[in-house]
Amino acid sequence: MSDYFPKVSKIKYEGPDSKNPLSFKHYNASEKVGDKTMAEHLRVAVAYWHTFCGTGGDPFGDQTMFRPWDEGGSDMEKAEKRLQAAFEFFTKLGVEYYCFHDRDIAPEGKDLAESNARLEKMCNMALQLQRDTGVKLLWGTANLFSNPRYMCGASTNPDPHVFAYAASQVKKMLEMTKMLGGVNYVFWGGREGYETLLNTDIERELDHLAKFLQMAADYKKEIGFEGQLLIEPKPKEPTKHQYDFDAATVIGFLKANGLDKDFKLNIEANHSTLAGHAFQHELATASANGMLGSIDANRGDLLLGWDTDQFSTDIYDAVAAMTVVLDQGGLAPGGLNFDAKVRRSSTDVEDLFHAHIGGMDTFALALKIAWKMKQDGILAKNIADRYAGYNSGIGAKIESGSATLKDMEEFVLANGEPKLVSGRQEMLENLVNQYILDLSR
Amino acid sequence: MSDYFPKVSKIKYEGPDSKNPLSFKHYNASEKVGDKTMAEHLRVAVAYWHTFCGTGGDPFGDQTMFRPWDEGGSDMEKAEKRLQAAFEFFTKLGVEYYCFHDRDIAPEGKDLAESNARLEKMCNMALQLQRDTGVKLLWGTANLFSNPRYMCGASTNPDPHVFAYAASQVKKMLEMTKMLGGVNYVFWGGREGYETLLNTDIERELDHLAKFLQMAADYKKEIGFEGQLLIEPKPKEPTKHQYDFDAATVIGFLKANGLDKDFKLNIEANHSTLAGHAFQHELATASANGMLGSIDANRGDLLLGWDTDQFSTDIYDAVAAMTVVLDQGGLAPGGLNFDAKVRRSSTDVEDLFHAHIGGMDTFALALKIAWKMKQDGILAKNIADRYAGYNSGIGAKIESGSATLKDMEEFVLANGEPKLVSGRQEMLENLVNQYILDLSR
Amino acid sequence: MSDYFPKVSKIKYEGPDSKNPLSFKHYNASEKVGDKTMAEHLRVAVAYWHTFCGTGGDPFGDQTMFRPWDEGGSDMEKAEKRLQAAFEFFTKLGVEYYCFHDRDIAPEGKDLAESNARLEKMCNMALQLQRDTGVKLLWGTANLFSNPRYMCGASTNPDPHVFAYAASQVKKMLEMTKMLGGVNYVFWGGREGYETLLNTDIERELDHLAKFLQMAADYKKEIGFEGQLLIEPKPKEPTKHQYDFDAATVIGFLKANGLDKDFKLNIEANHSTLAGHAFQHELATASANGMLGSIDANRGDLLLGWDTDQFSTDIYDAVAAMTVVLDQGGLAPGGLNFDAKVRRSSTDVEDLFHAHIGGMDTFALALKIAWKMKQDGILAKNIADRYAGYNSGIGAKIESGSATLKDMEEFVLANGEPKLVSGRQEMLENLVNQYILDLSR
Amino acid sequence: MSDYFPKVSKIKYEGPDSKNPLSFKHYNASEKVGDKTMAEHLRVAVAYWHTFCGTGGDPFGDQTMFRPWDEGGSDMEKAEKRLQAAFEFFTKLGVEYYCFHDRDIAPEGKDLAESNARLEKMCNMALQLQRDTGVKLLWGTANLFSNPRYMCGASTNPDPHVFAYAASQVKKMLEMTKMLGGVNYVFWGGREGYETLLNTDIERELDHLAKFLQMAADYKKEIGFEGQLLIEPKPKEPTKHQYDFDAATVIGFLKANGLDKDFKLNIEANHSTLAGHAFQHELATASANGMLGSIDANRGDLLLGWDTDQFSTDIYDAVAAMTVVLDQGGLAPGGLNFDAKVRRSSTDVEDLFHAHIGGMDTFALALKIAWKMKQDGILAKNIADRYAGYNSGIGAKIESGSATLKDMEEFVLANGEPKLVSGRQEMLENLVNQYILDLSR
Repeated sequence: MSDYFPKVSKIKYEGPDSKNPLSFKHYNASEKVGDKTMAEHLRVAVAYWHTFCGTGGDPFGDQTMFRPWDEGGSDMEKAEKRLQAAFEFFTKLGVEYYCFHDRDIAPEGKDLAESNARLEKMCNMALQLQRDTGVKLLWGTANLFSNPRYMCGASTNPDPHVFAYAASQVKKMLEMTKMLGGVNYVFWGGREGYETLLNTDIERELDHLAKFLQMAADYKKEIGFEGQLLIEPKPKEPTKHQYDFDAATVIGFLKANGLDKDFKLNIEANHSTLAGHAFQHELATASANGMLGSIDANRGDLLLGWDTDQFSTDIYDAVAAMTVVLDQGGLAPGGLNFDAKVRRSSTDVEDLFHAHIGGMDTFALALKIAWKMKQDGILAKNIADRYAGYNSGIGAKIESGSATLKDMEEFVLANGEPKLVSGRQEMLENLVNQYILDLSR
Repeated sequence: MSDYFPKVSKIKYEGPDSKNPLSFKHYNASEKVGDKTMAEHLRVAVAYWHTFCGTGGDPFGDQTMFRPWDEGGSDMEKAEKRLQAAFEFFTKLGVEYYCFHDRDIAPEGKDLAESNARLEKMCNMALQLQRDTGVKLLWGTANLFSNPRYMCGASTNPDPHVFAYAASQVKKMLEMTKMLGGVNYVFWGGREGYETLLNTDIERELDHLAKFLQMAADYKKEIGFEGQLLIEPKPKEPTKHQYDFDAATVIGFLKANGLDKDFKLNIEANHSTLAGHAFQHELATASANGMLGSIDANRGDLLLGWDTDQFSTDIYDAVAAMTVVLDQGGLAPGGLNFDAKVRRSSTDVEDLFHAHIGGMDTFALALKIAWKMKQDGILAKNIADRYAGYNSGIGAKIESGSATLKDMEEFVLANGEPKLVSGRQEMLENLVNQYILDLSR
Repeated sequence: MSDYFPKVSKIKYEGPDSKNPLSFKHYNASEKVGDKTMAEHLRVAVAYWHTFCGTGGDPFGDQTMFRPWDEGGSDMEKAEKRLQAAFEFFTKLGVEYYCFHDRDIAPEGKDLAESNARLEKMCNMALQLQRDTGVKLLWGTANLFSNPRYMCGASTNPDPHVFAYAASQVKKMLEMTKMLGGVNYVFWGGREGYETLLNTDIERELDHLAKFLQMAADYKKEIGFEGQLLIEPKPKEPTKHQYDFDAATVIGFLKANGLDKDFKLNIEANHSTLAGHAFQHELATASANGMLGSIDANRGDLLLGWDTDQFSTDIYDAVAAMTVVLDQGGLAPGGLNFDAKVRRSSTDVEDLFHAHIGGMDTFALALKIAWKMKQDGILAKNIADRYAGYNSGIGAKIESGSATLKDMEEFVLANGEPKLVSGRQEMLENLVNQYILDLSR
Repeated sequence: MSDYFPKVSKIKYEGPDSKNPLSFKHYNASEKVGDKTMAEHLRVAVAYWHTFCGTGGDPFGDQTMFRPWDEGGSDMEKAEKRLQAAFEFFTKLGVEYYCFHDRDIAPEGKDLAESNARLEKMCNMALQLQRDTGVKLLWGTANLFSNPRYMCGASTNPDPHVFAYAASQVKKMLEMTKMLGGVNYVFWGGREGYETLLNTDIERELDHLAKFLQMAADYKKEIGFEGQLLIEPKPKEPTKHQYDFDAATVIGFLKANGLDKDFKLNIEANHSTLAGHAFQHELATASANGMLGSIDANRGDLLLGWDTDQFSTDIYDAVAAMTVVLDQGGLAPGGLNFDAKVRRSSTDVEDLFHAHIGGMDTFALALKIAWKMKQDGILAKNIADRYAGYNSGIGAKIESGSATLKDMEEFVLANGEPKLVSGRQEMLENLVNQYILDLSR
């Protein structure tokens, strides 16, 4: 085993009173919440790109994080050291899953053949490390946005040559994900969108996007990959008009193209708020359509206009998320991928542990709170009561689809004005606050 | 004829050199642009609510506009004076269309029966005024958001009694719109959304919304109304999470519920930008789906977070809009409804004329610019060339739907890296600026 | 005593386990936190306008809240009933303070003389109720934005006649605030700004604003009013460019006009976020300048672009605020004014209690958490250590003002490159979360 | 002379009818507008960093622009080729000015001494090229944000060693700017701000910032540099809370620290809108305080939340800007620095010309429009008339500072209610549109 984090031992659960910042206060992997352990509920994954490839560079400045695994050697040697560091990190942190893009673990070669060979080599090494440690792959994905060839889109590029290149990367990564026992595969259309309609044919681009996804779904079946395919909506970045703007847009697109049986959604907190939606709205929209597959658990800064990808330590957001997850009976085979990065000035490798500990503790506590709320059933009963008018009479007739506008007019002429009923939002918010702020007693 | 605007005569086209602010500089109704007149292209409508019912009230202050038609008399007498003022305005301005909500022209009565009777009375008066003046109804709609009964939604209200009330209003307004020869009917779901998931069942609410629209589509057929049904997307206001967030969301919803043959979209500029999209993006998205039915032509303030409903005087926006309209072969039976209001301190009735003149002139000039751009064909050719790779070879195979990931990989292994080709955005923006800033020479 | 809230008895502290929604879980007025009681720390005030004058109207709909004190009688009779209801509410809730605008408690008369007489009458009644109940006035203010005369500004109106009217209202309300023993007086420049530079002379308007504030400061001294004068910054609403955009802008303006000894700031959470700042940033900015006078405690919705004025139940925001307050040694004579309104569909009078209870509990718990953090001193020590380099050597020379660019260059040439030191943001966020989520144990 | 742009000859003015995209349609350097030439009015500068150092990298992708001057050789050899390319570009474009950061033209060395030596070498080369071509330096500046040492601020860094490093860079660049005859020197506090108050002492940081600026102002005098010192406000990026948020904040800070005689402001369009202000608001605010020194002419995308730095082709913005500039009698010694970059997919060197031509043409036309508006005087007269009430009587007394609240009350009691007067915003907007859309006829 490598030793890239010499100051950090295996992170232990020490309970909420611990003064040790390198311990879990709430996350206790084997603790049962209902009939499943915390680990089974949360299915936490580390995001390879941020945690092992991130350098602290931003549009205004250079690298601030100089990692020991990046010192010396060829690109492939660095890639190997990085992979060892990653599994050391996973093991010390005690997570069961990780996620990666093809180009995160293997540097691009001089051409596709070399890139594929490098990727295969690194995946074989990852497979061995998975076996050694028990860590598993939550999802794989292909990076179809960093290389300059994708500057005008991948599958929505005006040049079919670029489409073909993107498709080739997906082919290889589907194979690799299958080999590694990955339980999902994610499409994030980083450059699938447009900057200006002055040079764009959106009808044609959307058609190409659908063709691309169809090819991937077909190939998945061809090779017998049984993981779930996921699309991750995101607005505004990096392309001004992203085709996968939000959950509703993606669901509509999938249904319009007959792809809704093949794909579910991977919902990210920060992408939700960039689209002008609450995180919980996006989760609930996906879930209501039976399409919530997995979660990118992070946090944005609503006063800033880009994807800050912060670690989620907001208990309100986490409780809202876990409520949707529990309501749909869990997230598997999806999980909580911590698609988050330490701040640019958090330059020590120990900061990577602090960050993940904070996020995991927050979601662990949120799980317990959401579970208690669900068990108590007060909120669910309140909602059921509120809509009870639709369970019989004119309401039931409306829901049956047999009512007409004439029926409606007759009903109102006979029954007059409806009564105003308070929605009780403040009382309900207080109730949730009581659960959140008092559970640990 | 009434005389509510004594200082204003019939507004005439006087050309771009005129110093008369109460004249058109570009809008010349009968001037041909291609094979249609400006009036036939633009189909301008006045929005009854803003122009005749607006009082200047805002969340921080009371009425600033004291209109002569609101002085003295019962509510119904005021309504009659208001209608006369409106047709005097339409006639002096020289527009062919107007749009209204049921409650704009007839005040709500003590119950539905009285409200319906009042509405019928006012519509009969409107019919006579239409015959007298030649002005026509672009669209009718029902106000399902102002009355307190709709505080928690209309068709998405937890109480089916409220659903029934809303449906009754739609029934009556469909009948009235038919009687008045209206060529469209609009649904804006002002309160169709939710404030908090703590008291909301979104699955059930979305189901009710679909049922509601289906009833309306059925009733339309039953009574033989031949106008186009339209849905107007809007995010964030007045309900935090509006179900009709944007064009893509609405299109997805309509298709998922089998309603996409019955409805098209009415796209508003300010609603587009509130959703985080360019106006042209929403127009193009609707048009690409064959669902751009009509336009609410106004302008927002992108530095403010609400629907400012300003009159559109931005030539860039107007050219972008007219480009989409010309590309799809026109907007009929839809039109350009000036869903805009004068600023709160523009307190004179003459300001209503200034505002409409500014908007009409801007769209008239935009029509001529967009027409010229389309005739020249440079931009269209540039786009066609950019995607030419999809017309044959591997591109054509992709578009045919017969290509596989393996084909893609073979192609790339054989053909190597694609070339980077500049998207030329700046050159294209300069070209558009040249059309915009030089046409009048 | 009136009986407008028959279902509500005096709200009691019942502790965090109580299932009674009409009880305090954390707010315990007489409980000591350090050397002061909770009530002395928090100085909670009810905002008269939202709680007793609010009707639920919004830009898209009419009144939803029909209050018993608004039924029947003349305007002045209603005003008297409203005032009785208010003091019943204050007493049952157990707060010590309230705040009001002149026009909240007394309806405007046919001219200034009558308006002043009405205001005096109502203030005399308020004085008696204050004596009867022990409730006190945190601050008074004049409404210089609702009446149409203020549509283009009050002190910044192009017409000096309007300036004079606004000044007359301020004169009277300074007198009334003094009579009622108010301990502060607030200026919120609701319409002090501009919509378009096409009709605005900002130099002249800013000069008039300064003159106006100077007159008020002079008159305060003349009548011997000893309360603190406060300015409340707000951006964007209702005027597009508000002159009092944020704390830094107001502080700069006051200093430039020699008014910074006469005024402090009243910082509102929702106004902070509308300006693009964190609530805590605005508090800290005011406090760092010695100018944090009072707080409007509410909450905005960062996904919406206007002042939603929600009751604050976010423990993170409340802890951040109380941290700044404790760091400057308290807020007196200022306090926490709950400038917040129940949601439009919270239509029962009981909702007013739920809302205030939620806000008061949140700030009470936040006070305890912030106090604990301050006592432990860990965060303060961390900050002090981080800047320790400025306590001696080159750092001390810089702070002394005696260092030059040449000194700096010499130092670097001698000492080389500085070391990168992690800012530890994630670890600190975890630490705060631990305080917040575990305190009640 | 180098030949890095072989496809581009000297750009000529060919007038608005030209079909040649590589020609000016409106910018005609020697054309007189009033008593000055266009070149004298506009003082256009090219921004070295974007145009010669930009690579097309963004947070999601690598370099897309592979420039001939970056091929082969050592870092210093590349720097020399880049400088030659730059002067070739300036000359072919026909601009008179450029701007640069120290690190743009000379790569950082192994320590400060080497960095300074490299900078001197490159500045000597630049001086020779300036002499050869007649191109001049509008302003110099030091890059105090890219190097990792500045990750927690430059002058506001917790470590005085970093402060000293930043100060050393400023010292050298003040010297170099003087040597090159630069007529301004700019401070943009890229990292002067904070990410979280959990680790920040804002009082101390603001004090250090003031000390830093004072040292620079002192050294300027010491070395006899006669250029204007400028501060460039910017919010949100790269640091969440930037101390130089907007014009009002910076002006307040300068005045509070006695620095307002030494500094003026450099206002950027995109920074203005990120702060929630119209570009013209920021220009007007600076100008009203006598502190508008120079302009960074670019354009943001108001639907995106970061600094997109697009070339300004919006005629409305440009007219608004030139109106403020003409109203204050010009911008010299400041100018219009095109702080803008071509889009990431505009990968050809020719795109750099298209972009600058578009921006220069837009501002040239805007100059002519704004000049015409000023000559006609209609808008200015309208504003003067609107405030005429302050020229005599009670208005004059208010402006004199001798009026009291009692005077105001007496006036209102005697004169009653003011009259509502329309602000005529729509008519004025139409008038501006008429100037903009018709001038070229």
